[in-house]
Amino acid sequence: MQYHFSPAMDRLQSSAIREILKNTADPAVIPFAAGNPSQEAFPTQMIREISDELFATDPIGVLQYNITEGYIPLRDALKAWLKEEHCFNEEKDEVIVTSGAQQGIELACKVLCGSGDTIVCESPSFVGSLNAFKSYQVNLVGVETDEEGIDVEKLEKVMQTHTVKAMYLIPNFQNPTGKTMTLARRKAVYDLAVKYQCIILEDNPYGDLRFQGENIPSIKTFDTEGVVLYMRSFSKILAPGLRVGYVSGPKEILAKMVICKQVSDVHSTIWAQRVCHQFLEKVEKSEYLSKLRTLYGRKYRLMAESIEKYFPSEIQVTHPEGGLFLRVTLPDHIDMLAFCKKAINEAKVAVVP
Amino acid sequence: MQYHFSPAMDRLQSSAIREILKNTADPAVIPFAAGNPSQEAFPTQMIREISDELFATDPIGVLQYNITEGYIPLRDALKAWLKEEHCFNEEKDEVIVTSGAQQGIELACKVLCGSGDTIVCESPSFVGSLNAFKSYQVNLVGVETDEEGIDVEKLEKVMQTHTVKAMYLIPNFQNPTGKTMTLARRKAVYDLAVKYQCIILEDNPYGDLRFQGENIPSIKTFDTEGVVLYMRSFSKILAPGLRVGYVSGPKEILAKMVICKQVSDVHSTIWAQRVCHQFLEKVEKSEYLSKLRTLYGRKYRLMAESIEKYFPSEIQVTHPEGGLFLRVTLPDHIDMLAFCKKAINEAKVAVVP
Repeated sequence: MQYHFSPAMDRLQSSAIREILKNTADPAVIPFAAGNPSQEAFPTQMIREISDELFATDPIGVLQYNITEGYIPLRDALKAWLKEEHCFNEEKDEVIVTSGAQQGIELACKVLCGSGDTIVCESPSFVGSLNAFKSYQVNLVGVETDEEGIDVEKLEKVMQTHTVKAMYLIPNFQNPTGKTMTLARRKAVYDLAVKYQCIILEDNPYGDLRFQGENIPSIKTFDTEGVVLYMRSFSKILAPGLRVGYVSGPKEILAKMVICKQVSDVHSTIWAQRVCHQFLEKVEKSEYLSKLRTLYGRKYRLMAESIEKYFPSEIQVTHPEGGLFLRVTLPDHIDMLAFCKKAINEAKVAVVP
Repeated sequence: MQYHFSPAMDRLQSSAIREILKNTADPAVIPFAAGNPSQEAFPTQMIREISDELFATDPIGVLQYNITEGYIPLRDALKAWLKEEHCFNEEKDEVIVTSGAQQGIELACKVLCGSGDTIVCESPSFVGSLNAFKSYQVNLVGVETDEEGIDVEKLEKVMQTHTVKAMYLIPNFQNPTGKTMTLARRKAVYDLAVKYQCIILEDNPYGDLRFQGENIPSIKTFDTEGVVLYMRSFSKILAPGLRVGYVSGPKEILAKMVICKQVSDVHSTIWAQRVCHQFLEKVEKSEYLSKLRTLYGRKYRLMAESIEKYFPSEIQVTHPEGGLFLRVTLPDHIDMLAFCKKAINEAKVAVVP
């Protein structure tokens, strides 16, 4: 049979990057490509104990169907945490659990955007999110960034010339540049969203991994108008294999996302949600996260020093204050795809072009 | 802010059923509404031991990112099982793990159907799937069923008058009627799919729960042309909270579904996939499933006998040979919504209108 796929599939091809990186599962390869958290950071013994305790005390609760919105005690714990950080408005907001922040991003796009609607994003940005948008036939417009974040003048020009449904932003330690948006830029971006009545998808998976510099409030903290959907995840602070993320934002939007989540996976694996809940109950958060920051800071400094020492002087490099990504720009005459192929085949080092 | 949602959201409202049933979490309510498997059927001790063993032997593997297609040893075990049942073509097929069969259904619709394409289904059919189709603005056409399954003449008329992209069928112990499609009907439906070049989404979550009558081969077993996507799940035989299902079908379609799954949840919770893998390794399948069939057969007979004994003679009732659903038709003059409200409020019995 000759298969005919939906029009959205035309733009969703398996990427050149994926092809290059498909053999990174080879343990001989040094994996600098994907945003896998360090396995040294996984509290394996604690999770093992939590799991056993769950089966000892409530095995049926761990295994039966649960509600789409997410395990209520986990959502209550997340609301408390988000409130501490001024990212939850008791009256207007709701929190739902998603299967990774990735699902939060996809669901937001699905409920907000019809085919041909425009989403603006930083250029470059996280491929996983961009592909989620493409899968709904959204028109993507990238806006350049400088050292302070997205270029607000260029962003406003896009707002004036397109009907922008949403902005997709990673203000902290952006994937893939590692850059952080300044407070002034965050405020300017928020003002633009309100002025042009567009939703901000604020993706913050790395925010807890700041290893230098001062913390900057999330855009969500300014949001009096209900324009921000704020996505976070347990992937980088606990373990990505759990697939537990969450979204905080206006009730009205989240109610639609719940309906779409129900037709997608009914609910996220309840065991994983309950592990995250018990993790939040058991750890002293600031102490736990401080250890993670020390670990990633050490890794970052080693990487930065090695680049300084071994790389030629023509390259440019970003100086992230946290997170998992750092970006090196090679001179123009170098073919990045060929370089990456050579890196993985000859030096067994995986990097993303 | 005034929110504007995507056009697909107009057809996806929170249903009257959901509103009626939202308080079924009340432990005083007798839950005959949702397809929750019996908690007596959960092998809780085995899952607890498997979980502990996984953390003892490969904690990092359980917690780190994995590939979108699903945990390879689980997929290999599923291929072996599907091969035994003639539901896997070594040369042409692939198997991917999904977050419940629900995700398999949603992804199939996403890759196959554009807005306005038609999917035919049995009338009535499983609300979760119908809503997944609606969420992609698919045109749904229901075809009546008789005691042998979907009416093939009426089905062909629909094929002649619409461009049907897919048929959605639950041949075994259908949700919500409990009916089983005969072998002759399965063959007729397959022939129509080939003749009109349309995909069959064969949803088989209950097939292992036959408690009376003879097993009937899946439509997938006839499929020489690559028109069938076959969905199964661990939800009804192991535990639904795990959210592990799988799809077997033509490689070309599954490759597209993998790209869409990647933008949806990256991969299904790896712990849950590995629990399912170890479950298949440890149990003697036919013995395990035979115990389940005995359990559900006992429950069915109690229900059938009670209906016979206590219900008025004007009602009609289906006689399922397996699965979790049985359908009672009340006389025309009774308002079903009002009846269901009364049932839950006064008698604390939850049923679906």
